[in-house]
Amino acid sequence: MQGEFSLGELAVRFGLKLRGEPSLTIRSVATLSRADSGALSFLANSRYRRQLESTRATAVLVAPADEAHCPVAALIDPNPYLAYARIATLLHPDLEAPAGIHPTAVVAGGARVAASASIGPLSVIEDDAEIGERVLVGPGCIVQRGARVGADSKLLSRVSLYAGVTLGQRCVLHAGAVVGADGFGFALNAGAWVKVPQVGSVQVGDDVEIGANTTIDRGAIDDTVVANGVKLDNQIQVGHNVIIGAHTAIAGCTGISGSTVIGQRCMIGGMVGFAGHLTIADDVVVTGCSLVSASIKQAGSYSSGMPAVETRLWRRMVAHLRRLDT
Amino acid sequence: MQGEFSLGELAVRFGLKLRGEPSLTIRSVATLSRADSGALSFLANSRYRRQLESTRATAVLVAPADEAHCPVAALIDPNPYLAYARIATLLHPDLEAPAGIHPTAVVAGGARVAASASIGPLSVIEDDAEIGERVLVGPGCIVQRGARVGADSKLLSRVSLYAGVTLGQRCVLHAGAVVGADGFGFALNAGAWVKVPQVGSVQVGDDVEIGANTTIDRGAIDDTVVANGVKLDNQIQVGHNVIIGAHTAIAGCTGISGSTVIGQRCMIGGMVGFAGHLTIADDVVVTGCSLVSASIKQAGSYSSGMPAVETRLWRRMVAHLRRLDT
Amino acid sequence: MQGEFSLGELAVRFGLKLRGEPSLTIRSVATLSRADSGALSFLANSRYRRQLESTRATAVLVAPADEAHCPVAALIDPNPYLAYARIATLLHPDLEAPAGIHPTAVVAGGARVAASASIGPLSVIEDDAEIGERVLVGPGCIVQRGARVGADSKLLSRVSLYAGVTLGQRCVLHAGAVVGADGFGFALNAGAWVKVPQVGSVQVGDDVEIGANTTIDRGAIDDTVVANGVKLDNQIQVGHNVIIGAHTAIAGCTGISGSTVIGQRCMIGGMVGFAGHLTIADDVVVTGCSLVSASIKQAGSYSSGMPAVETRLWRRMVAHLRRLDT
Repeated sequence: MQGEFSLGELAVRFGLKLRGEPSLTIRSVATLSRADSGALSFLANSRYRRQLESTRATAVLVAPADEAHCPVAALIDPNPYLAYARIATLLHPDLEAPAGIHPTAVVAGGARVAASASIGPLSVIEDDAEIGERVLVGPGCIVQRGARVGADSKLLSRVSLYAGVTLGQRCVLHAGAVVGADGFGFALNAGAWVKVPQVGSVQVGDDVEIGANTTIDRGAIDDTVVANGVKLDNQIQVGHNVIIGAHTAIAGCTGISGSTVIGQRCMIGGMVGFAGHLTIADDVVVTGCSLVSASIKQAGSYSSGMPAVETRLWRRMVAHLRRLDT
Repeated sequence: MQGEFSLGELAVRFGLKLRGEPSLTIRSVATLSRADSGALSFLANSRYRRQLESTRATAVLVAPADEAHCPVAALIDPNPYLAYARIATLLHPDLEAPAGIHPTAVVAGGARVAASASIGPLSVIEDDAEIGERVLVGPGCIVQRGARVGADSKLLSRVSLYAGVTLGQRCVLHAGAVVGADGFGFALNAGAWVKVPQVGSVQVGDDVEIGANTTIDRGAIDDTVVANGVKLDNQIQVGHNVIIGAHTAIAGCTGISGSTVIGQRCMIGGMVGFAGHLTIADDVVVTGCSLVSASIKQAGSYSSGMPAVETRLWRRMVAHLRRLDT
Repeated sequence: MQGEFSLGELAVRFGLKLRGEPSLTIRSVATLSRADSGALSFLANSRYRRQLESTRATAVLVAPADEAHCPVAALIDPNPYLAYARIATLLHPDLEAPAGIHPTAVVAGGARVAASASIGPLSVIEDDAEIGERVLVGPGCIVQRGARVGADSKLLSRVSLYAGVTLGQRCVLHAGAVVGADGFGFALNAGAWVKVPQVGSVQVGDDVEIGANTTIDRGAIDDTVVANGVKLDNQIQVGHNVIIGAHTAIAGCTGISGSTVIGQRCMIGGMVGFAGHLTIADDVVVTGCSLVSASIKQAGSYSSGMPAVETRLWRRMVAHLRRLDT
């Protein structure tokens, strides 16, 4: 399944400076410490130079500053991690799924499925759904009425798209992701809750990745929006009418309450909680396990994750904190 | 798919006071700022009066205090959000699923399925399971041995009901919800864990909503119980033998450890953690990202979510807190 | 479905001391307060002695120190909870799934499925996958190319194993679990994210339990590893290249960032967040809702979960904490 390339070919194709023998063959990628003959490794952080110095890789991607420490052939670039991403994609291409509809898939008569799309076994495509060119709908996925999936997107397995949601091109959705379930909206009536129909939808842009078991709710009236290039890790909860700006990346287990608007190019750590109806500026970083309870107007880094200490010390710290209020 | 009603009809049907022309036609709901001709909007919070004043809706649901600010026809009620919920339900009814069993569903001979129920494609109903009148079992759902689903409930898609669990009437379960997986019970034996069989079940009452990818574990011996009218958002974890009282609402990503009992009419924020074996009174509010580590005996609002600040300031705050212990 | 045993038989089979009539019949397990004739109960914590004293169980498993307080027949052992786990397993055996492949399962020609395995309805086994002896693949599971499942493991329902992952023997995976989705790896390129292919896999050892909707990502280059005897509760997120040591138990909703190594026999509470690239010693306890942001070198108990108090008091505590920085 893997390709095989000469170092020279890789240097030319990706515009990298090569130090060493261009005819050396690269067959796989590997970490510095486990690399072997035929493997290409990379050094993205000078802190790991010691591993570089003892590597058995055939070649290593390094920044110019680290080149002198590389004991084997080197591909040199100011951003070795990016170059690694591209070469690894070349060496480890996705399996091509065969175009066509698996005989066990259930595709409604009114669905529009591109001939180049691959519809996997035991998946369901309901009426009026639209599946673009070269889309992969993996096994066990469910695409409900009127949902649209843009060209080259992949629903890897057991993904649920509710009615009417739209995905852009080149999106990747992992197993168990749910897009378009009802937002959490109820009105009180004499102590009991009355459901507020969630009549909005979800718009997901191009090049969005949605991790395993992540959930994105449909809007209450207007739509929930995930802009181009957003990357969502696993088990993230996105409430109704949230807007996530382009190229923002969010780590696992984070939850975003309804109607919060997150800017572009933000980097949000894992298990962060956002209150609802906030506005977060562009280029904001939030570190893991923080609670964002107010809008953030300026780019910068924000935190409230409390680092664990020995339990006995922690109990005293909590007691001291309470005592401040006396 | 939407209905169409005159303002006069709506006023009569829902007992609302009407100011304006009864023959105006309402076709959809919309937010104040995006509403257009034919749309009904609402103002639930006087803070948004400015949006009211510039709306292009055909009519707006308002409280008596806001009526004077409404530039268009008004439906007036002390609880405009509740009236909105009801009218939106009327205007945007769920699609009727056709009664009957889809040919690709796998229904065991010993299952009892009401003739009026709709069993979707690629769903599984095992022996002794019982599916009530007008129940919707959507695509990819799995109802295991002896599970029971009350009349008018909806398993929207990819829902798993483990063996023996019972759901009441008019429940709504979203994609990826799991009811009845084993509780987390293990006994230590010389450093290794021995599984404790989880022989209890789960009882879910009437009018319960269970969000996408929410999990409710079966009891260790007695049952886990979710009472009537409880509303659970997405990605909530309910441990074995938890009891959740009637009409309590819980926001996304909250986790409740085993054997904790939560009272009636509580409102629990998102990403709250409950320790096990606690008792929480009725009418308790817990704000988001709190840790409830002890029982709560009195109604009221409780918190421990720490608001994020600039990371540099936060680091100093943590250092000061540690220094208190010296 | 339950067995029926005499007290004498149970005492002999599990090496327990018996006080009472050996011919008494045990048909089920029950809690002390709800037990009835034919039921066996247990007392694992002397705090609940009052329940023991009024129980109507036919017999109770107790520690020697509690024997005198038992009003009915007693099975006596230093670890009554462990004995309970074993007897409950005997009394409530899992249903035997019939060997063979359900006609609605989609099993690729190149898959190797043991004749004693049970492949449930609407499950998918792709090419080169390997299913061991007596494995249960429940309804709606998806086992992708080259994944391997060791003997006697159970994928209960709607489990996704991505390509190439390996599970050991006697594992139990609950509904919605996902093993082998891509880790969260992206390289920045002029403000946009470029996907870093995740070419590692996941190795899961023997006797591992994985809870409902828990996700374990595949490694970026090397593998993610979950060692023998690890128990993972529901909705846990395990990042790429995490290593979890043998017999560690982790409660629900916890998230572990990439490349963190957790030792053996650790006990991790619910909703704990681990930063990435940490090393956690063996025999570490972390209490619920803590943030582990640095490596832990010594066994012991660690915490940072802040206990909820009344919201008004909490606001003052936060204000005092901020004021320390002035």
